[in-house]
Amino acid sequence: MRKIAIIGGTGDQGLGLAMRFVQAGLPVCIGSRDETKARMAVDAIKEKFPQASVTGMGNTQAVKDNDIIILSVPYKFMVDTLKGIKEYLTPEKTLVSLCVPLASNVGGRPTQIIQPWEGSAAEQAQGLVPEGVSIVGSFHNVCAARLQDLDNTVDDDVVVCCNDKEKRKEIMELASRVDGMRGIDGGPLCNARIVESITALIIGMNIRYKMPKGIGIRFTYLYDI
Amino acid sequence: MRKIAIIGGTGDQGLGLAMRFVQAGLPVCIGSRDETKARMAVDAIKEKFPQASVTGMGNTQAVKDNDIIILSVPYKFMVDTLKGIKEYLTPEKTLVSLCVPLASNVGGRPTQIIQPWEGSAAEQAQGLVPEGVSIVGSFHNVCAARLQDLDNTVDDDVVVCCNDKEKRKEIMELASRVDGMRGIDGGPLCNARIVESITALIIGMNIRYKMPKGIGIRFTYLYDI
Amino acid sequence: MRKIAIIGGTGDQGLGLAMRFVQAGLPVCIGSRDETKARMAVDAIKEKFPQASVTGMGNTQAVKDNDIIILSVPYKFMVDTLKGIKEYLTPEKTLVSLCVPLASNVGGRPTQIIQPWEGSAAEQAQGLVPEGVSIVGSFHNVCAARLQDLDNTVDDDVVVCCNDKEKRKEIMELASRVDGMRGIDGGPLCNARIVESITALIIGMNIRYKMPKGIGIRFTYLYDI
Amino acid sequence: MRKIAIIGGTGDQGLGLAMRFVQAGLPVCIGSRDETKARMAVDAIKEKFPQASVTGMGNTQAVKDNDIIILSVPYKFMVDTLKGIKEYLTPEKTLVSLCVPLASNVGGRPTQIIQPWEGSAAEQAQGLVPEGVSIVGSFHNVCAARLQDLDNTVDDDVVVCCNDKEKRKEIMELASRVDGMRGIDGGPLCNARIVESITALIIGMNIRYKMPKGIGIRFTYLYDI
Repeated sequence: MRKIAIIGGTGDQGLGLAMRFVQAGLPVCIGSRDETKARMAVDAIKEKFPQASVTGMGNTQAVKDNDIIILSVPYKFMVDTLKGIKEYLTPEKTLVSLCVPLASNVGGRPTQIIQPWEGSAAEQAQGLVPEGVSIVGSFHNVCAARLQDLDNTVDDDVVVCCNDKEKRKEIMELASRVDGMRGIDGGPLCNARIVESITALIIGMNIRYKMPKGIGIRFTYLYDI
Repeated sequence: MRKIAIIGGTGDQGLGLAMRFVQAGLPVCIGSRDETKARMAVDAIKEKFPQASVTGMGNTQAVKDNDIIILSVPYKFMVDTLKGIKEYLTPEKTLVSLCVPLASNVGGRPTQIIQPWEGSAAEQAQGLVPEGVSIVGSFHNVCAARLQDLDNTVDDDVVVCCNDKEKRKEIMELASRVDGMRGIDGGPLCNARIVESITALIIGMNIRYKMPKGIGIRFTYLYDI
Repeated sequence: MRKIAIIGGTGDQGLGLAMRFVQAGLPVCIGSRDETKARMAVDAIKEKFPQASVTGMGNTQAVKDNDIIILSVPYKFMVDTLKGIKEYLTPEKTLVSLCVPLASNVGGRPTQIIQPWEGSAAEQAQGLVPEGVSIVGSFHNVCAARLQDLDNTVDDDVVVCCNDKEKRKEIMELASRVDGMRGIDGGPLCNARIVESITALIIGMNIRYKMPKGIGIRFTYLYDI
Repeated sequence: MRKIAIIGGTGDQGLGLAMRFVQAGLPVCIGSRDETKARMAVDAIKEKFPQASVTGMGNTQAVKDNDIIILSVPYKFMVDTLKGIKEYLTPEKTLVSLCVPLASNVGGRPTQIIQPWEGSAAEQAQGLVPEGVSIVGSFHNVCAARLQDLDNTVDDDVVVCCNDKEKRKEIMELASRVDGMRGIDGGPLCNARIVESITALIIGMNIRYKMPKGIGIRFTYLYDI
């Protein structure tokens, strides 16, 4: 597995994902606009995993030093964050977007989405990165609470959408490294518009069912993948 | 459980659903534009379930005689079918839409959807029925092959979207009558746009993974519902 | 003509519209979150039209005191502004939305739009106001620079969309009071999604053609209306 | 001006456009699935313009023999028509789409649109043609009745959207050859989604205003282009 950085790794979902990768024995780099916050996230991880190979740094350096860049910032900061790091994004790096264009980004409800002009947040991100860089849309539907509940496995499927099949496969394998999780081939990047919207559906279900750890999805009748 | 008619009950998914309801001990009426086809579907069901309480008739009569009307026609016939039956739709009846606006309805791919002006096929249907009739969007994501594989249970979740909470609950209970299946509260009807699009995602996964019985979905960490 | 308040009347487009109504001999109230700004806008108008009947006040009071409430705030402030004034919105008042969900509201380009869950900014606004209040979508496509160029008429058409035909007509008549301008019957509110998107198209044309006063639209072969 | 074929040139809008090009002194080829219909359209044109340089033939031959291919078929036949001609589309040819995804194509109203997965009919067409072929979206908003009213000029603007600036310019110049008409730079192809939807808005206005010749659009304050 190539070297992983989580941009926005100090937020709930980014930190949860970092902990799961560390739990799976992978080294992780936490990127943040604020280096102090990045170091605090590192401390929080080290407290639970004292042997973890985890570092914290500014976003720019995190992108430079790593291969798989996971963008885990709220949708409303996606464009600005991408503009800040795009000059360091080279075609051999893999950029993963977790962003979901929830309507709450424009004052609406988190149970609804807005549709970007490009169709999805991931496709919008694709339009902002240098030629040759392939965006992967993934990890949208896994709840932060579940990721951070380290005593239990994450028995969820993670749909992975990307136009570059090699990069798609790389992230499917990364997801499958987390105990209980399966990386699922979600096809081309444009399918991210469906996968992103599932997050809004799940948020509504979490509200209606009051499930403490957060609902996820599993595809049935999909074996031995 | 109130009396059920399946309009378009001679198609693969309608017939599969009819068999599952019959298997669950529920009486079912098969509606079709073509009464002969309806009777052939009845024979097919009786062959597998000789004791079944199942009848076949024209769409109009099927709507008149029953309470829960399940619309299981391809999206491109949805509007015409609704126009043909709408005068018999009264507010106490429950109208369930399985229609998915797959792009294949306009010459495109079944792995993509088109967006109706109203947002989803179910919301479009809502605009065509008399005042007071509530559309329920449901059963979109269950594959026909799985329904017709009667030796195995259908271990899928069925998301149910409706603005009328009583009708939503009625269809959740109906889905849960099928062995293995759970009816899930999907919230208001507008959420059908997400649920419908999941069908296109699943069709793409069926193509990529070549699963013979058809992939479905299950929500994880959602217990005792 | 009933009494008019322009919420966000200190911005370029709101102020321009206020000046045109004043020029047409109509009394206008400028509403702003900041009363000082409202009074400065009043001074700017009085400088050009010393006899104008124009007042400035906070948004809440402006809504209370007037009948036609024109919401002229950037889309990203629409929801918050509506939440602040909605308790004073009664069914006899007319609420006009000029908001356009330009992609620049989420870091994108002003030549593109995002699609709210409800279809348009105006339909989103409709979902936020009390039962019985009808939103009118209008004045989206008139450039601020043109409105403020007081030496020339505004030879544009203004499409007016509303589900309430009386309110639609009221705003068509209001638009037609501005010299050169015609209020056009745009049909039901859902058509605002088309009209709003025309603004993005025009912004792109302004950039490509570098027209100083801002391009507008006129419908051809539409006479004697 | 390079050689023009109008595929679907026997329909109202295709035929109207052919007549206007002929009126402007341009040679035109009418393509149809049905060669007899193509010849009848040629006769209809020759009756009005006896000196016209106009020919009729099957779609395939029409594509082979010409440079500017104007696709003027109802949206529901767009994909099939494209599949039939795509092998003859070479990058130096210009393919113009007039198709509008009106909701009436799936049983709905002509005053509303459906949104193709790709965003617009023109972008959908782009996905179906060989690599290197650039689709131009144009002529959507000009009514057939106006085109065929040969005693009067067509005082409309025609928005031209294309990712290839040379081809965009070519069609802008073609539109400007029609007396009264102006070809307007509409920017990249994705803007066709706005331009196509304007057709639905205009159809609604034609219904509400009962204008016999069909409403069109003109951009104001756009001079000397």
